[in-house]
Amino acid sequence: MRIAVCQLNSRHDRKENLTIAESLLERAAAGGADLALLPEYVDYLGPVANSPDPEPVDGEVGEFFAAVARRLGMWVIAGSVHERGPDPVRTYNTSLVFDRSGTLAATYRKIHLYDVEIPGRVSYLESATVAPGAQPVVVDVEGLRVGLSICYDLRFPELYRKLATEGGAQLLVVPAAFMLHTGRDHWEVLLRARAIENQCFVAAAGQTGDHEPGRTCFGRSMVVDPWGLVLTQAPDGASVAFADLDLKRLHTVRSELPSLANRRL
Amino acid sequence: MRIAVCQLNSRHDRKENLTIAESLLERAAAGGADLALLPEYVDYLGPVANSPDPEPVDGEVGEFFAAVARRLGMWVIAGSVHERGPDPVRTYNTSLVFDRSGTLAATYRKIHLYDVEIPGRVSYLESATVAPGAQPVVVDVEGLRVGLSICYDLRFPELYRKLATEGGAQLLVVPAAFMLHTGRDHWEVLLRARAIENQCFVAAAGQTGDHEPGRTCFGRSMVVDPWGLVLTQAPDGASVAFADLDLKRLHTVRSELPSLANRRL
Repeated sequence: MRIAVCQLNSRHDRKENLTIAESLLERAAAGGADLALLPEYVDYLGPVANSPDPEPVDGEVGEFFAAVARRLGMWVIAGSVHERGPDPVRTYNTSLVFDRSGTLAATYRKIHLYDVEIPGRVSYLESATVAPGAQPVVVDVEGLRVGLSICYDLRFPELYRKLATEGGAQLLVVPAAFMLHTGRDHWEVLLRARAIENQCFVAAAGQTGDHEPGRTCFGRSMVVDPWGLVLTQAPDGASVAFADLDLKRLHTVRSELPSLANRRL
Repeated sequence: MRIAVCQLNSRHDRKENLTIAESLLERAAAGGADLALLPEYVDYLGPVANSPDPEPVDGEVGEFFAAVARRLGMWVIAGSVHERGPDPVRTYNTSLVFDRSGTLAATYRKIHLYDVEIPGRVSYLESATVAPGAQPVVVDVEGLRVGLSICYDLRFPELYRKLATEGGAQLLVVPAAFMLHTGRDHWEVLLRARAIENQCFVAAAGQTGDHEPGRTCFGRSMVVDPWGLVLTQAPDGASVAFADLDLKRLHTVRSELPSLANRRL
């Protein structure tokens, strides 16, 4: 199973974002990827007030990625898009997983939202405009169990524990838009820790570079193996990084250091 | 609150191990430490078959550390010792926490034990000779909430989650005897991840160097702040590393990036 993590700089022009995403998916397919992962908010990353109208999963954006997956004959995880779901006012931050035929195989709505309030200084409530999901999701990708998550979820080890134990995940994916400030101290550490403690592969695709308004994303999309080694890492800018996931490696790690089996709480 | 992490090379001679531990605790006190942490199995680290008879917590070893804490007027966490507890056959791997008056303020018995069995190749069952504890423990150290753990526990994020949320821990301690092989890829990553995801200080004291039979420990005792930065790190060999724990820093991290408050599962 070859995975490609696709890194780009989504901005306010949805059409252009999708065009760039498509070109990266073409590079992934040309490189022999079976599965390609795109970052969080691949459809739009700009001022919240100017967001395009969100769509249901079978709207224009969903159909676009379905068609690309079908044309390239490759699994595609549209890291996340703005979804119009059952919440009457708020959008969902939703991952769409398409199989090689372009069929929607799974969706996952981001569970953890960033809500901060420091009286007189900062107030940023993601939950004011985004409705949280409630359901961890693991999807079968041709025999590989893939656990889904999005960006801020990475800070919550209990989600990945559920994906790996109850869901049997072998690969954990983390589409993200980590910022420079938090990325430099937390990104690689948390990705490697999730891999080590859950003895899973971890694939993370990040937004990169400057976005409006005044936001800079960390990039450094990467794939980590179940021992915690970084198998591949993307340089700055739009790029595609590849890694081959060897399940024998996963089974070796899990049998020689059986911490998943030695849980007690 | 100044903490000292003491790193040493415990071997088969219990008396000598205690003498070295005492000299490190004296250096910690001379450096102004309020609290000093020693590694796992500070009393004995050699062939299991030759282990000295384990004692109750108020045995010779416990009384030794109680007296040192009293004499130095400093909190001492005897990282772990071999305890004779209620299990009729097996010992406990137990942390002893003494206050400045030498009174035993808390004990913690290691919960997670390393049991591996690969047919025809490896069989190592820590649980054959060690009985697991069942109870997470947080102790109040002059207003600082300190969550206890030991070595292999570090691989189990659910323990630290309990300590930080249900127990209100602000400092997580990890006395350890991590081996070179696992230490180089997992030690710093997991310590920093526990600090970041639980927004706690983390203090880790490791065994260092060669031990019988054919075991080499990783050392690199360290203290990490709630943002995940390494505040201090010990070089090879017996040593003491100091760090000042500033609770204002912890409160700032928790208010500006409130991931502990944003949990949902």
